[in-house]
Amino acid sequence: MKSIVCSVKVNAAVPGLEDNTADIDRLQQDLTSILGDGRPVIVSYQHMTSVARKFRLAGFSGYALLNNMDQSWQVIDFFAARPAVIPGMALDLGTTHLEASLVNLQDGEILAEANLENTQIRFGADILSRIHHATTKRRQQKLPEPDFFDPGLTELQNEIITAINELAAMLAARAGVTAGEILALSVSGNTTMAHLFLGLDPYFICREPYIPLFNRAPVMDAGQLKLAINPASPVWIMPSVGSYFGGDLISGILASGMAKSEKTRMLIDVGTNAEVVLGNSEWLIACAGAAGPALEGGVARMGMRAGPGAIEFVSIDPETYEMEYRTIGNVRPKGICGSGLIDLVAALYLTRMIDIRGKFRDPDGEQDQARALFMKKHISRREGGLCFVVTSAKENDSQGEVVLEQIDLDAMIRSKAAMYAILTTLINQVGLEFTELEEITVAGAFGRHINPQHAMTLGMLPDLPLSTYRAIGNSSLRGAELVLLDDSARRECEHIVSSITYLELNVNQEFMIRFSGARFIPHTDPSLFPSVPVFDTPSS
Amino acid sequence: MKSIVCSVKVNAAVPGLEDNTADIDRLQQDLTSILGDGRPVIVSYQHMTSVARKFRLAGFSGYALLNNMDQSWQVIDFFAARPAVIPGMALDLGTTHLEASLVNLQDGEILAEANLENTQIRFGADILSRIHHATTKRRQQKLPEPDFFDPGLTELQNEIITAINELAAMLAARAGVTAGEILALSVSGNTTMAHLFLGLDPYFICREPYIPLFNRAPVMDAGQLKLAINPASPVWIMPSVGSYFGGDLISGILASGMAKSEKTRMLIDVGTNAEVVLGNSEWLIACAGAAGPALEGGVARMGMRAGPGAIEFVSIDPETYEMEYRTIGNVRPKGICGSGLIDLVAALYLTRMIDIRGKFRDPDGEQDQARALFMKKHISRREGGLCFVVTSAKENDSQGEVVLEQIDLDAMIRSKAAMYAILTTLINQVGLEFTELEEITVAGAFGRHINPQHAMTLGMLPDLPLSTYRAIGNSSLRGAELVLLDDSARRECEHIVSSITYLELNVNQEFMIRFSGARFIPHTDPSLFPSVPVFDTPSS
Repeated sequence: MKSIVCSVKVNAAVPGLEDNTADIDRLQQDLTSILGDGRPVIVSYQHMTSVARKFRLAGFSGYALLNNMDQSWQVIDFFAARPAVIPGMALDLGTTHLEASLVNLQDGEILAEANLENTQIRFGADILSRIHHATTKRRQQKLPEPDFFDPGLTELQNEIITAINELAAMLAARAGVTAGEILALSVSGNTTMAHLFLGLDPYFICREPYIPLFNRAPVMDAGQLKLAINPASPVWIMPSVGSYFGGDLISGILASGMAKSEKTRMLIDVGTNAEVVLGNSEWLIACAGAAGPALEGGVARMGMRAGPGAIEFVSIDPETYEMEYRTIGNVRPKGICGSGLIDLVAALYLTRMIDIRGKFRDPDGEQDQARALFMKKHISRREGGLCFVVTSAKENDSQGEVVLEQIDLDAMIRSKAAMYAILTTLINQVGLEFTELEEITVAGAFGRHINPQHAMTLGMLPDLPLSTYRAIGNSSLRGAELVLLDDSARRECEHIVSSITYLELNVNQEFMIRFSGARFIPHTDPSLFPSVPVFDTPSS
Repeated sequence: MKSIVCSVKVNAAVPGLEDNTADIDRLQQDLTSILGDGRPVIVSYQHMTSVARKFRLAGFSGYALLNNMDQSWQVIDFFAARPAVIPGMALDLGTTHLEASLVNLQDGEILAEANLENTQIRFGADILSRIHHATTKRRQQKLPEPDFFDPGLTELQNEIITAINELAAMLAARAGVTAGEILALSVSGNTTMAHLFLGLDPYFICREPYIPLFNRAPVMDAGQLKLAINPASPVWIMPSVGSYFGGDLISGILASGMAKSEKTRMLIDVGTNAEVVLGNSEWLIACAGAAGPALEGGVARMGMRAGPGAIEFVSIDPETYEMEYRTIGNVRPKGICGSGLIDLVAALYLTRMIDIRGKFRDPDGEQDQARALFMKKHISRREGGLCFVVTSAKENDSQGEVVLEQIDLDAMIRSKAAMYAILTTLINQVGLEFTELEEITVAGAFGRHINPQHAMTLGMLPDLPLSTYRAIGNSSLRGAELVLLDDSARRECEHIVSSITYLELNVNQEFMIRFSGARFIPHTDPSLFPSVPVFDTPSS
């Protein structure tokens, strides 16, 4: 295990008439024998003067700073004393959001974290509209000249470089270093984001047969990309598998550890799409589907990403009908995020305010007095039909109210049905049962905050012991951190890429049948969810 | 055998829904299996867009252009049809002179040749004065800051880069291409010239214990050095062994073929110094000494480098005393170069106009009438004593006369004695006889024009059958051509560097004794030169 940039102790012999090896050769020879892995040690041209001088100044003894490349070691600096901190930046390059961390490559410590919106959004909210913008001029010429550059592509690239530089400055300030002292960058993003980051033509990504320009990028240095970190920093981009199977998912698989596990595991990453991978160290099978929007602020009117003011937790006591909620940052509620939505809908089901189809029950016919009182307070009849008022405008005057409408509930039911259908289609594909899984790893902001018990109540996740579920947060960022710290993790990415199979759901008949069956709470077949109470049977 | 840049035929499958490999990955995979040597195929960032586009435009079939690097293959371009010409530039980076050739890397054909004076001469005639100039500011600070650059060094580097660009333009024009189409550069020069070319501090080269900054340079690309050839061109610099054992000599050894020969050979390269190497595929021993100046225009008053107007051949018929000479370019004589000087002095000896000590004989006491007549015409008594008038001012009015003075003769004798002493000391070191040598390879302009018979007459080269001697011209340039054409030649350079031993003559007592013994024509011990007539015995 060697980090992508490491310091190596050198104690070379002092030159003399009997040992007239040149300075650079002396350093190389010493390092080659210390590292002993057959990879050549190279001092590239731009570093020869300063490395040779520092080596001499330090009396031919000290610490070489090396970029740990696939085929070679590149000496980039030399110090008299061991550097305590070698800052490396890990980046999750999301379509809507960038998350980054600064890692000390000497010991793995997280020095700082930061995040930003992806300001490319002003050129297009989703991947397709960004590809459209990036190819505005290019689309006029079916096969452009080799030296043609689309200004739209350059615009999108510049936007992302600027954002990364801003993140680097934030991280550096928080860690008490300068951005120029950051010595490595790893980037995990979907295939299109990787193309836009490098300014490489994404034209064919969204056109049959959907061919990216690249899946495996060479290791670049930051100077080539005009990044405001140390120009000699290696920039490592997570490899992707195809146009719709990006490095972010490879990164997630890496972070989950499933590709090293003997027993089979499942990884669920809910972002714009729900991406699900099943497998172990021998094989991996993956698929993706549109199960995410309702959970990521994309569909529900009051839905929002997990961020300050988002209701992330809701409970309603089924006896006393006392309701509690909590917002991120403990500020006034502005909306509700995925985990809050799951909590709320599960609570609405368990308190029988919605039926198994996810439809609001009419408060007027309610027999139970306590429930009737609660419904009177929270369920309101408006233009769009019945809705649930989480926080009223009065209680929360300046911010307006947070309300769950029937249309939001319907979207939520579709999402949870899609999720369960994806999971069952995938596990059925390999002939396993959910109970045979060693672990279900739940990634993403969704995974960090979700209560699996409530997701099970809704029939979104399989009914399994809670200990089966493990949340790992932003797995794309975690994987990016791992490749900075460990070259075996970089090799594991290659292994993952080569051992993965992709299951296409868009043309999958089984998926459509399973999706229909899952559009009830918890399911058309309640025996699949023995721990969830069933209050009535679905009407036809 | 693969050239440093080669074209490789590719015929990749056309992508489809069942084969959605990315464009760059598709090209890499195809090339990896075609090349099959385990080295990874890399498309570096700056070439990804154009290579991917050209690959697509050509229907995924055509010719990839690759830089053949030590650890990898670097794809730099893609063509629909096989390029007929891949121009690579070989350069002998001499202290006084630059010689270059343009080689077609597809077939080894020499497309053009060119040469220029090394205009660094205006900053210093020799290596030491150039190091002095390159360290003008730096000498004020014993250990300069790592980022310190000496303006003198930059000046010398710029001078050489400008000259190389000029040579590239000349070569390109002669070959009917543009300088930007030149795709590789190999450079063979002494250790100091290599440092000045790269702008790397030569300060310690001439200070005990004489440590260069580097002996083995990394492969650079032309863009890094602001060379006006294709910026992606690999720039390969011949490795050196030490401060006084440069890449030009390694190049010469390579060109001679001696390091691959089972039988022992000798290489003699006369430049500013005489550099001599003895050895075979098992071992190599080298030494250098100041035997050159008299032969390279450095000492004789009328001496000059082999160039237009230099008398390169002289003969005097020992019976008729008819004298003939020939100048380079068949123009009016301006001076005399090494080979002409050797011819002339040998002829003067054989016609008994000088004695075995190399002293002019007094024409007044001459008995032979024909000789007396000739002497009367050509031997003149002037301020500095007797001298030989090769061409008189009358015959050659506007240019003045070409004259050999006693001082020139004395220098010539010292040079030839030094040469023979070097050769005998070296061969004695390994316990061999000259007759055991398979070949004596004579390199340099000296080697190209010299008549070995005349050099033997003077006792400069050992008395051996003429077939033992082989002239190879500018071996430094020949070696630079070889490394462009054949990667095994580049590996052979490593072998040469690691198997060579250096014999220091400055402190060698045996050399001084042998030098004294060789200060007669042909030698104090004439039995060493059975084919040379001896007219009298040396006076004490």
